[in-house]
Amino acid sequence: MTEPSAYGSAGVGFIDGEYSPMAELRLPVTDMGFQLSDMCYDAVHVRNGAFFRLEDHLDRWERSLAARRYDTLGHGRDAVAEVLHRCVARAGLRDAMVTFIATRGTPASGHKDLRSCKNRLIAWALPYYGIVPDEELERGCDIIVAQTIRIPSEAVDPTVKNFGRLDFVRAVFEAYDRDARYAVLLDRDGLVAEGRGWNIFALTGGVLVSPDAGALEGITRKTVYELSERLNIEARAGRITATDLRAADEVFLTSTAGGIMPVRRVDDTAIGNGEPGPVTLRLKDMYWDLHDDPAYATPVNYDLAEA
Amino acid sequence: MTEPSAYGSAGVGFIDGEYSPMAELRLPVTDMGFQLSDMCYDAVHVRNGAFFRLEDHLDRWERSLAARRYDTLGHGRDAVAEVLHRCVARAGLRDAMVTFIATRGTPASGHKDLRSCKNRLIAWALPYYGIVPDEELERGCDIIVAQTIRIPSEAVDPTVKNFGRLDFVRAVFEAYDRDARYAVLLDRDGLVAEGRGWNIFALTGGVLVSPDAGALEGITRKTVYELSERLNIEARAGRITATDLRAADEVFLTSTAGGIMPVRRVDDTAIGNGEPGPVTLRLKDMYWDLHDDPAYATPVNYDLAEA
Repeated sequence: MTEPSAYGSAGVGFIDGEYSPMAELRLPVTDMGFQLSDMCYDAVHVRNGAFFRLEDHLDRWERSLAARRYDTLGHGRDAVAEVLHRCVARAGLRDAMVTFIATRGTPASGHKDLRSCKNRLIAWALPYYGIVPDEELERGCDIIVAQTIRIPSEAVDPTVKNFGRLDFVRAVFEAYDRDARYAVLLDRDGLVAEGRGWNIFALTGGVLVSPDAGALEGITRKTVYELSERLNIEARAGRITATDLRAADEVFLTSTAGGIMPVRRVDDTAIGNGEPGPVTLRLKDMYWDLHDDPAYATPVNYDLAEA
Repeated sequence: MTEPSAYGSAGVGFIDGEYSPMAELRLPVTDMGFQLSDMCYDAVHVRNGAFFRLEDHLDRWERSLAARRYDTLGHGRDAVAEVLHRCVARAGLRDAMVTFIATRGTPASGHKDLRSCKNRLIAWALPYYGIVPDEELERGCDIIVAQTIRIPSEAVDPTVKNFGRLDFVRAVFEAYDRDARYAVLLDRDGLVAEGRGWNIFALTGGVLVSPDAGALEGITRKTVYELSERLNIEARAGRITATDLRAADEVFLTSTAGGIMPVRRVDDTAIGNGEPGPVTLRLKDMYWDLHDDPAYATPVNYDLAEA
C-alpha cells in the first residue's frame, strides 16, 4: 500500500447500474454530489467473509437518505444491500471496506434546481484498510487539538455522513505542521467533536465519555457503548473539553476503518503512561471477538459474483 | 435547457491532460476532491469571444491554490489559462461559462495522507448560463432568509471558492419548501453572508453595502464596487442583518453566472416597489457595457481549437 495511487487500485465499484474495476470507477463532474457535496454515504466492513452490523449501517443510511431527501435513488434497502454483496463477491474479498453513496445527481439546466436531479447510487468494495497504520494501532497514535472548528450542526447536520469535509482537511494540515497526522476538532464552544472519519472516547475516573453533539453517530461508537455495559463500565455521550481530553486516563478513537484505536498523546501531553490503557485494549479485543457473533454478522453471498 | 441532464450535455472538458466532450468528463471517485471536498475552483465567463476579467479570476485562483496548498498541480498560471482557452476554442463557444478546479487527488493508501496525493487539474467550458432564468432577471427574483447558517470561516475559509456546500443545499431546500428557489444564509450572529454562488447587495439611503465577512470575494461584486464609484454612489463591505435587507430600497445578487440580478422580494417583504430599482438597473447595464472595454477583455485564442 505504499505505491502512489494504490488506494483504489484494487476492488470493484458500481455506478449507474454497472459494475467495474475500482480503478475505472468515475463520477460525472456534473453531479451535484461533487459540485455541492450534495451526497450522503455509509461505510461498512467485511471480516472473514461477513458484513459486520450491516443492518445498523443500512438503518443509518436510510435515515440519511430521508434527511437529505434522496427519494429518486431507484434502489430500496434490499437492492442497495444486494449491490454491496455483489461488489464484495465480484472483488473476491474476505476482508473489505465497503462504501455506498447517494448523490443528488445532474440537474436539468445551469439553474441547477436540485429537484430536477435524478439521484445516483455509487458503491465500492476495497481490500480492508484502517485509518491508522498497524504500528500505530499497537503503540497508540498521536493527535492534536485543531484550531479549526468543526462545521456546526446549524450549518450541516453531522449525523448525515457526508464528504463536505473541508474543516477536517484544514485540521489535518494543522496536524502535519505539528508533526502529527490526526486532528480532533472542537466546536465553537470549545467542546470536543470528532476527527476525520472517527469518533473519540475519553476514560476518566472509570467513566467513558464520547461527545454528545457535533459528531457522527458512529456504529463502532455504538458498539463501544454496548461492550462497556458488558464490562460494567459506565459509557455515555457527554461533554468533553480539550483539557478533559489531555487529563483523561485513556483516550481512543473509533471507526469502521480500524475499529478501536488507542491514542498515546494529545498535543504534547502523554495520555496515562503513554501506552494504550487496559480498558482500551480490553474493548479492542472484545470488538474483534464480537465479529464471530452471528447476531452481528451477515455472510457475504459470494454466489452473486457472477451475472 | 429543459431536458433532463441538459446541464453538461454540451461543451468541452479537460482532465489528466486530455480534452473530451463535457458529457464524458468524469472524476475518479478516489480523488479527495470528491471524498473530502478537498478542492478549490474558479469560474470565469466568456462573452462575445472574450474572457471577462480573466486576470482577476486567475489572481483569486492562485490565492486559493496557495491557501489550500495545491502545490503539485503541474500547471502554472499560464498553463491553466491555456487550458481554459483550449476548452472554449474546442467547444467553439462565443459565450461560455468556464470552470477550473484543483483537487487534492488520490492518496497512496487507505490511510489517506493528503501529502501523498498528486493534485489534479480539471476544467470545462459550457454554453453560457445564468443562475436565474431570464424572466427572473427581468422582473427580479424572490429569495428567502434561511434558518440554516453559513459554514463559519473558523471552520472553512469562504474566500477559497469550493464545493463543500451542504449548508447551501439545506438552505435551498428551505426555499423550495417556501415556494422560492433562492436562499440567503446568515452567520451565527444573524448577519447576512451569501447564497449559493452569489454575493448580495443592499441599497439603503443611497449607500450600497455587501457583507464584509463570511462570503466569497466575488469578482462581480468587485466590479459593482468599481462601477458604483463611477456613479458617485458609496459602495462598501459592511454588516447587514435580515431586517436591514427587508427594509432596503433595492437588493440585488451578483455572480459570474448571471451578472447583476435584481431581487423583488425577501421572504414575504417586497423590496422597494416590488420591481427592480433604478440603481440596480443602471449598474446592470453598465456591467454588460463594461464587457466591451478592452481593459477587462481577453480574446479567446480560437486558433487553439486544434491540436
